Amino acid sequence: MAVAPAFATSGDDLPGDAEGLKRTAAREGVDGYVRSGMALGLGSGTTSALAVLRIGDLLRSGELRDVRGIPTSEATARMAREAGIPLVGLDDARPDLTIDGADEINASLDLIKGRGGALLREKIVAASGGGLVVIADGSKMVDALGEGPLPVEVDRFGYEATLNALATLGCEPELRLLSGEEPHPFVTDGGHYTVDCKFYSIPDPAGLETEIRSIPGALECGLFVGLTRAVVIASEVGVEVIESGLS
Amino acid sequence: MAVAPAFATSGDDLPGDAEGLKRTAAREGVDGYVRSGMALGLGSGTTSALAVLRIGDLLRSGELRDVRGIPTSEATARMAREAGIPLVGLDDARPDLTIDGADEINASLDLIKGRGGALLREKIVAASGGGLVVIADGSKMVDALGEGPLPVEVDRFGYEATLNALATLGCEPELRLLSGEEPHPFVTDGGHYTVDCKFYSIPDPAGLETEIRSIPGALECGLFVGLTRAVVIASEVGVEVIESGLS
Repeated sequence: MAVAPAFATSGDDLPGDAEGLKRTAAREGVDGYVRSGMALGLGSGTTSALAVLRIGDLLRSGELRDVRGIPTSEATARMAREAGIPLVGLDDARPDLTIDGADEINASLDLIKGRGGALLREKIVAASGGGLVVIADGSKMVDALGEGPLPVEVDRFGYEATLNALATLGCEPELRLLSGEEPHPFVTDGGHYTVDCKFYSIPDPAGLETEIRSIPGALECGLFVGLTRAVVIASEVGVEVIESGLS
Repeated sequence: MAVAPAFATSGDDLPGDAEGLKRTAAREGVDGYVRSGMALGLGSGTTSALAVLRIGDLLRSGELRDVRGIPTSEATARMAREAGIPLVGLDDARPDLTIDGADEINASLDLIKGRGGALLREKIVAASGGGLVVIADGSKMVDALGEGPLPVEVDRFGYEATLNALATLGCEPELRLLSGEEPHPFVTDGGHYTVDCKFYSIPDPAGLETEIRSIPGALECGLFVGLTRAVVIASEVGVEVIESGLS
């Protein structure tokens, strides 16, 4: 793992607000890693959306050519179409890399993802080749994963039993609801529920991932271990790029 | 593990055809293990259907009372309703035991299930309590699991990438299709695809199960390890009951 100063930017021109930091991380991640001719996994969520816009800008200006996107959600697919990025599926292409945000990042570049609700498709794309380039503002770096809830995508059938099984792993699981006049479960693009699990600290992400996946009905969890190629972090003091050695 | 001769039946009154053997196994399994007041997981497939009919008969005759069924498929739910078995979900009850068939059974009572297409729901119910009572004809006993294909339930999104990942485990994966004028993928009750994986021999079922579940998009596999409480096997020479010690 090495800081790659090639992409480091002076803090002088960094906007200090969170939105501005996300935009800076998205721009530096796209400009540093995306090349013409690539098939690109496109993550979901607010920071990924800014990367999609940046890629669209570079395609329009001609600085990038022949980039195809593999979207990880219906929302990202719509946004990429509007940005002028041709889309393909995993049947047509394997990603050369995937650009995506994260909810938490530790020093080993393991991630928690999925608070945006697209973790299963994000993980399928990220695992299918090329590794993840993670773009984030500095608030996403943590000492230990698990400060916030870990999302788990679960089958709707018998989800109550799945929640009980998750609780035996030492967390407080909570079915994600959409508020409204009558609160109802959030449903993923794949038709599943999401359970947010408060662990508070996850000392062994790989071990917990295996334990969660051994529960029938727990279809996928938001721990992304060993999938990160680089993180591009924008904070008030500048942009830091950390590479994992994965390529 | 012990053969429990209490339920053993002389071969004299056993019909020799496969249908008759299944009916015998279903009857002996229900009569030997189902008691009044139980919540019962109800498997899917032809042998489970015969168990559902037997439970219905015993409820009508008054030999069983206050049994509630937890069905593992829409087809089983319909059949149980017709048989007069009141149905509940996993939110209302945990199964005292689950009665189900199997495609292959080894000497450790590990199973391959899912050729009937309901493996995810069957595994969610079986894992939620009480263990499995497996009913089968003698042809289902094998020296090593994997003689026939191992079904894996996969997310529809990016299933081609999931097939490729499954192939790296040393099998020949094949998307299950429904024949017809235009063949199309078989879709489970949960809205997923099924991939049949030819391994030919599976020396380490628990290890393979963990490997398969570590593939994003491979939502569940048909290996049922450590979930069996008893198998009730009917063959031309009689009925054999083997208990695992699990209760």
